[in-house]
This record gives sequence, structure tokens and C-alpha cells, in this order.
Amino acid sequence: MSTRKLRLGAFLPGAGQHFAAWRHPHSHTGGILDIEYYKNLARTAERGLFDAFFLADGLAVNFGGDINTGSASDKAAVFEPVTLFAALSQVTKNLGFIATDSTTYETPYILARKFASLDHISHGRAGWNVVTSIGDAVARNFGLDKQPTPKERYDRAHEFVALVKKLWDSWEDDAFVRDKTSGRYFDPGKVHAANQDGKHFRVAGPLNIARPPQGHPVIVQAGQSDDGRELAAETAEVIFTAWQSLEDAQAFYRDVKGRLGKYGRSPDSLRIMPGVSPYIGRTEQEARAKQRALHDLIAPEAGLALVSGLLGVDSHYLSKFNLDGPLPELPPTEGMTSRQDLLVGIARKNDLTIRQLYEWVASGRGHWTIVGTPAQIVDKLQEWFENGAADGFNVLPPLLPDGLNDFVDLVIPELQRRGLFRTAYEGSTLRENLGLLRPGNQFSKLAA
Amino acid sequence: MSTRKLRLGAFLPGAGQHFAAWRHPHSHTGGILDIEYYKNLARTAERGLFDAFFLADGLAVNFGGDINTGSASDKAAVFEPVTLFAALSQVTKNLGFIATDSTTYETPYILARKFASLDHISHGRAGWNVVTSIGDAVARNFGLDKQPTPKERYDRAHEFVALVKKLWDSWEDDAFVRDKTSGRYFDPGKVHAANQDGKHFRVAGPLNIARPPQGHPVIVQAGQSDDGRELAAETAEVIFTAWQSLEDAQAFYRDVKGRLGKYGRSPDSLRIMPGVSPYIGRTEQEARAKQRALHDLIAPEAGLALVSGLLGVDSHYLSKFNLDGPLPELPPTEGMTSRQDLLVGIARKNDLTIRQLYEWVASGRGHWTIVGTPAQIVDKLQEWFENGAADGFNVLPPLLPDGLNDFVDLVIPELQRRGLFRTAYEGSTLRENLGLLRPGNQFSKLAA
Repeated sequence: MSTRKLRLGAFLPGAGQHFAAWRHPHSHTGGILDIEYYKNLARTAERGLFDAFFLADGLAVNFGGDINTGSASDKAAVFEPVTLFAALSQVTKNLGFIATDSTTYETPYILARKFASLDHISHGRAGWNVVTSIGDAVARNFGLDKQPTPKERYDRAHEFVALVKKLWDSWEDDAFVRDKTSGRYFDPGKVHAANQDGKHFRVAGPLNIARPPQGHPVIVQAGQSDDGRELAAETAEVIFTAWQSLEDAQAFYRDVKGRLGKYGRSPDSLRIMPGVSPYIGRTEQEARAKQRALHDLIAPEAGLALVSGLLGVDSHYLSKFNLDGPLPELPPTEGMTSRQDLLVGIARKNDLTIRQLYEWVASGRGHWTIVGTPAQIVDKLQEWFENGAADGFNVLPPLLPDGLNDFVDLVIPELQRRGLFRTAYEGSTLRENLGLLRPGNQFSKLAA
Repeated sequence: MSTRKLRLGAFLPGAGQHFAAWRHPHSHTGGILDIEYYKNLARTAERGLFDAFFLADGLAVNFGGDINTGSASDKAAVFEPVTLFAALSQVTKNLGFIATDSTTYETPYILARKFASLDHISHGRAGWNVVTSIGDAVARNFGLDKQPTPKERYDRAHEFVALVKKLWDSWEDDAFVRDKTSGRYFDPGKVHAANQDGKHFRVAGPLNIARPPQGHPVIVQAGQSDDGRELAAETAEVIFTAWQSLEDAQAFYRDVKGRLGKYGRSPDSLRIMPGVSPYIGRTEQEARAKQRALHDLIAPEAGLALVSGLLGVDSHYLSKFNLDGPLPELPPTEGMTSRQDLLVGIARKNDLTIRQLYEWVASGRGHWTIVGTPAQIVDKLQEWFENGAADGFNVLPPLLPDGLNDFVDLVIPELQRRGLFRTAYEGSTLRENLGLLRPGNQFSKLAA
């Protein structure tokens, strides 16, 4: 039996990871702006002993499909993650909550305070997935015509994260003495102003909330670019990533863990968790049928809009070709060449038709997809976990709540039987369950 | 029996309204960053059938007392209100939640989304107390050296509130059809981009969350200046205000209700709710003893720091004078003359010593204070309510949880006996309980 345990995130947005999940007869018909629906998902994830509930986020409408016909995905209207997680923390005890938020469009003081508040409200179960927010649609909601360049965004992100950490350390852990007798509420020697006067931010501080229970919320990162890897190596404690093959995942794992040393960090201070979208059946045939049922719900115009968006071409361009024929040569795109190259490469390598390509995209959205029995799925997860590709996985059920229920009822027990996963929560905070150390306060005299 | 009912807000920050409340033996010793403590306050307010739980807010540390000695109030480190209320909404069913947030330092897209999310999470119980955030300490947390002028702040506030309302109307109420059979998720004719290109903001929209259950969260305002009154007349549905006398409250009530017409609004579309801090005893003597016990907990240096801050003078200035002598002539101040004049006027008119002045400030913090039996207190509230001074009250218990318990157990039943207050919630949303209409969508073709 392995003694090292893998960690599991649950990515539970709306109807599920598959683009057409919301059309499935089992998906929640009341729509996804339903707090009761999310409470049930959170309770199920906690029953499965998941480390955390994770949500992506964007600061513009994610139309997903074709805005002109309304054939969107179900992500167009969603809860704001931090408020949602504050609510969900009240119906759970151990489950962590990792909310995505932007270093490009948020302000450091407000973001630091919001996540600190969530960490206090949840008794130490908050995580922040740091993103720089891609896309001009977001920029246009914040007074800009076009998004800043990746270099500008990442430059700002480095300063932003460091500043937010400084703000979280405004008060030492024992700063609040609250001595009723003497009338002394806090120890003035244990409060620290950030006094940031940086390239992007001037923030005086201190923050108007006590240091978070976890020291600071767990810092999560998902970028795969070189800029993203460097930001992760400097600051991230968890990385969510997307790889299709063991070899690519291993290369990424080696590369990022290898970058930690220059920031004085040990390999064990970072958990790398690739995304995986599992179709689970009692037989392989049943699992394949579940996937096919979802694929068959993709309206062709919505599938074309989805894949065209990722390819950076007009959605009418592909509609002139046979859906069941090969992907044609594409017109050149501006600024999205790497994603176009990636998708074209996948289509060519696997001989995919246009329809198969959009089904592939609709299914995993770039994440690793496994179809099979619990034993087959765990074989794959174990292979990655034991061969330097993963410290755990971010699980993206294709259809909710079914796919989460299946994972909890069928896959988790198999992981436990093999000694790969916990049988009870190790601690009460997200950090404790992830096996991450609580950081010291950067202002503390003892630490200096 | 009166058929018009008064509305009640519960202002429940930390240990209570009295500056020294946290030092009282009955105050919560665990500090106020304790979600269980707030859950109990929310449940008690709901038991008392309050319309809403209200919290003030600031974007800088509120040291309150003397930072050098740590003799602060207990408001230095607090929960962020919207995350707190999202959590509290899960342990209540009818209580509304009014969170304060800033038009000067927040961004419209993020604020609109956050409050919409709270309104969905709470099934229609959110309110936004619109503030422009006073003080250079706040400005310095957002890249500025000094705060913008009141004129600049209010100019921005008008555009901000109108823009946020537009964003809340991004989706018509029935925009999401979610037709699993056809694959149509929304009706493209019912989604509207804000396309704001204003003096202060450029925001494309639409907002990435459905229209709030209340149409929009209840808009609250607390400014008493002419700028504040005008902003309230244009946009507010509730005003929290601070008056010491029936005459002043009546004059304000007449003035603001009189301004509504030019915005096409009826007097009934706005609830004016003065603040009141009640000391409640089974006898008047018991009530006075409760107030005295709190006054006696004010450390003189903290009291001097508190009152000096409001007077705009250095806290060492007053310490040279006899605490039990009259308020001396003060050095001229910059920018806070109206507040200095107000306090000096109160001291002179009532012949207050320095100590009595800081006790007065520490007690109500500028709000109306009533000391007496439940019947005496209700006599006063009824007088204001029935004589054109108030549509209800924002109740600021001096000490928590005692003062809230007393109000719920002793004052509410007396209000109900006189037919002045509900005996059950009228509706499930904050708007319904306040008796305010649900606004139509500004983009709706039917409304046009």
C-alpha cells in the first residue's frame, strides 16, 4: 500500500464539464443559479472526502455557444464564487473552497479582504486561484478596449500576489489581545502597514481584518505558459493543469518542481493536480454510452461556435464544410496561434472529423478524459500519480450531479482500497488536508 | 390601532454601538471574527421580525481609539459584509441583509455582480447601502494620497449607481429559457449590454449573472449632506439617518420626501429610518444603570482619541484640559468644520464637560439615544413615526447580544401590542417586507 496520498479537487460548475450537460435529462432543470443545487454538490463532495470545491471564473459573460441563437452553454449566468462559497461553507465542515479571481481587474485591498473574510467564515478552508483574465470582452467591462499584453498582465500579477500576501500579514496571529480589564484591544507592535509603493500599486494598509486562519488562503494557479509557470513557481501551492498524455504531464511536473529551488521552496510545498474528466460505468460499454449520450446533445451550430471560438475563426467558416469530413485548412488568426496549432494538431494526429473535434472539445474542454470502469479509471490515475506526473487530480465530472455521485460512490472506494486516498479528513483546514505548511508572518520578529 | 407599520433595521456590528461595549463582561469574549456569534445575532434579529441586518463598512482600518496604546474600539478587524451576509443567509429565511459598499473605490461590474449574487443566494434579501467613503486613509489603500472632493465623489456615485442598475437589468426576468429539447439556453432578444461610455466609467456588459430576484437589491443611502440627499432622492429606497430631535428629523423627512417628485417618484417609494440606540430596562433606573456601566468602561485616553478624531484635533490637545471641565476653544481644522461645529454646538447647548461629550459620542456615535422602559421607548418611537419624522428605525443596540435580546423580548412585543409592528413577515424578500415595489427592467419592451 502506498503511504503517499493523492489530493482531489472537485470542479463543479453548473451542469458539468461537458458542453451539452445542461441538456441531459438528469441535469438540474431549475437552472444553476440555485443555492440548494450547489449545497447538495458541496455535501456530496464532502462525503467523498474531496480536498476542495473549485470554480473557474470570468468577469464577462461566457456565452460559450452561439449568442445569436441562444444555444449557449449554461455558464452565461453564474454565481460570484466567493459569495457562493461563503454560503456553502455553512453546510460543510471540512471541504475546502477554491475561488478564481483576477489580478488584472480586481484591486488588491478588496481582493485580500474578501478572501481573508472567506477564510475566517469557513474556519480556514479558502483558496485563491490566481488568474490574469484572458480576453478583450473582460477588458471592455473595466474601461479598456483591449486586454493588456500577457507580459503586462503577469508583471502586474507578481506584484499583486506579493502585495496581497503582505496585506494578509497586516496583523500578527496574536495581535488582538482584547483585554477587557485594561481596555487594550490590540498590541500596536503587532500591526503592520504594507506601505506598498510599487510599479502597479500604491497601498498603505493595514488590512481591516485579522490574519486568516490558514496564515493565508491556499494560493492556486492554472497557467501553463512560461509566464504562468514562473508565477506558479514563485507563489502557487497548488497547480491545476491540463494534459492529455502521461509524458506531457511528467514534463510539466518536472519543469515546474524544478523551478521551485530558485525561490527557496521545496518540491513538497507545491501540489500539481492535472484535470481529469471521467466517464464512469459499471462496464466500459456503459461508460462509453454515457459519453455518447452527451455528445449526441451537442447541437451542430453550438459545437461549431464552440470549436471556432477556440480556433479563432468565424463560426460560419467551418459550417461550409462537411461535419463528418476532415478539418479543412484554416485562415490565419491573430493572437491565438498556439491554441489553434494545438487543436489542429490534435485533429490531424487522431484523424478527427469536424464533428469529432467539437465533441472532443465539448467533452473535456482541453482536459484529460478517461472512459471506463472504476478500476480502469483508477489504473490511469495511479499510473500518473506514481510516475511523477501528478500529486493528485482536479476532477471535472462531465454531468452533474450524476458524474460526481458516480465518482464518490464508485471511484473513491477503489482509490481507498488501493491505499491511494484518505479514509477520513486529516485536518479541518484546506491547508492541513493538502498537507501544506501554514506560512509564518513576514513581519513577525521571530521569523526575521 | 394604526394600520401603517413601522420598519426596523438591526445594526449589529461587533460588540455593539457603544464604543466600550467590547469591554463589558457580557460581550463576546472570543472577538468578533466569529461566524457563530454573527449567526446567533442574525437568528435573534429574525426572531424579532426585523426587516434587515445592516452593517456599515469602510475600506481602511477603523482604529477608533488610540493606535499607539491599542485602546481601540472592536471595529479594527471585521468581516467583509457581503461574504458574511452570504453565510448568514443560510441560517435565516426572511431577514434581509444590507451591506455597505463604496462607489468611490469599487468597480461597477464587480460590485453589481457581488450584490446580484447575494440576492440570488439569499432568495431576494439583499440591500446595498451606497457610500462614497470618507477619509484619506481609505484613499491611500487605493493608490491615492488624498480622497476626491465630495463633489467628485458624488458625481461618480450618481453614474455608478445608475450603471449598476443597468447591469442588473442585463437579462430580462424570463431571458433564460433553458429548453433542453431545442438546445436554446437563453433568448438573445432578452439580453442587453450596458454599453456605458460615461464620464467616469466605460463598461460594455452584459453582467454575467441573471437579474436579481428583487429586480435589484434594495438601494439604501445614509448621507445627510445636500449631495447625499439628492443622491438619495434619485436612487434610494431606504435612508438611514441620524437625528437628535423630532424637529430635525421632521425637517429632514419633509425635505427628502419633497425632492422625490422631480425624479418621478412617489413619497411611498422611500423609507426614511433614523437610527436609534435604546438602553432598555424594566425600570428607568435599570436602563440608566446599563448606560452608566458602559460609560464607565471608556478609558479616558480612548475617549479623548475618539472625540478628538471627530473634532478634527490632535488627541493630545484635549488631554491638557480637565476632563470634568468644559470643552475649551479648539484650534481651526481643515475640511471637517461641519462635524466640529456640530459637536461643539451639542457640548455648549447641553453644558457638557469633556468627559460627558466623549460619553455622548461613545454612546450613540451621533445617533438618537433613548434610555427607559419598553413603554417609554415605544412612546418616543411612536411619536416620531406618527408625526412625519420616520417610516421606521434603524436600531443600534449599545451592547450585543444583550441589547438586541432586550429589544426583541421587551420592545417588539410593546410595538406589536400597539399595532405598530408586524406579527409575522409579510413576504419572503426584503423588498416585500419593506413594502417596496419590485422595479421593472429598464430594457424591457413592455416597460418602454
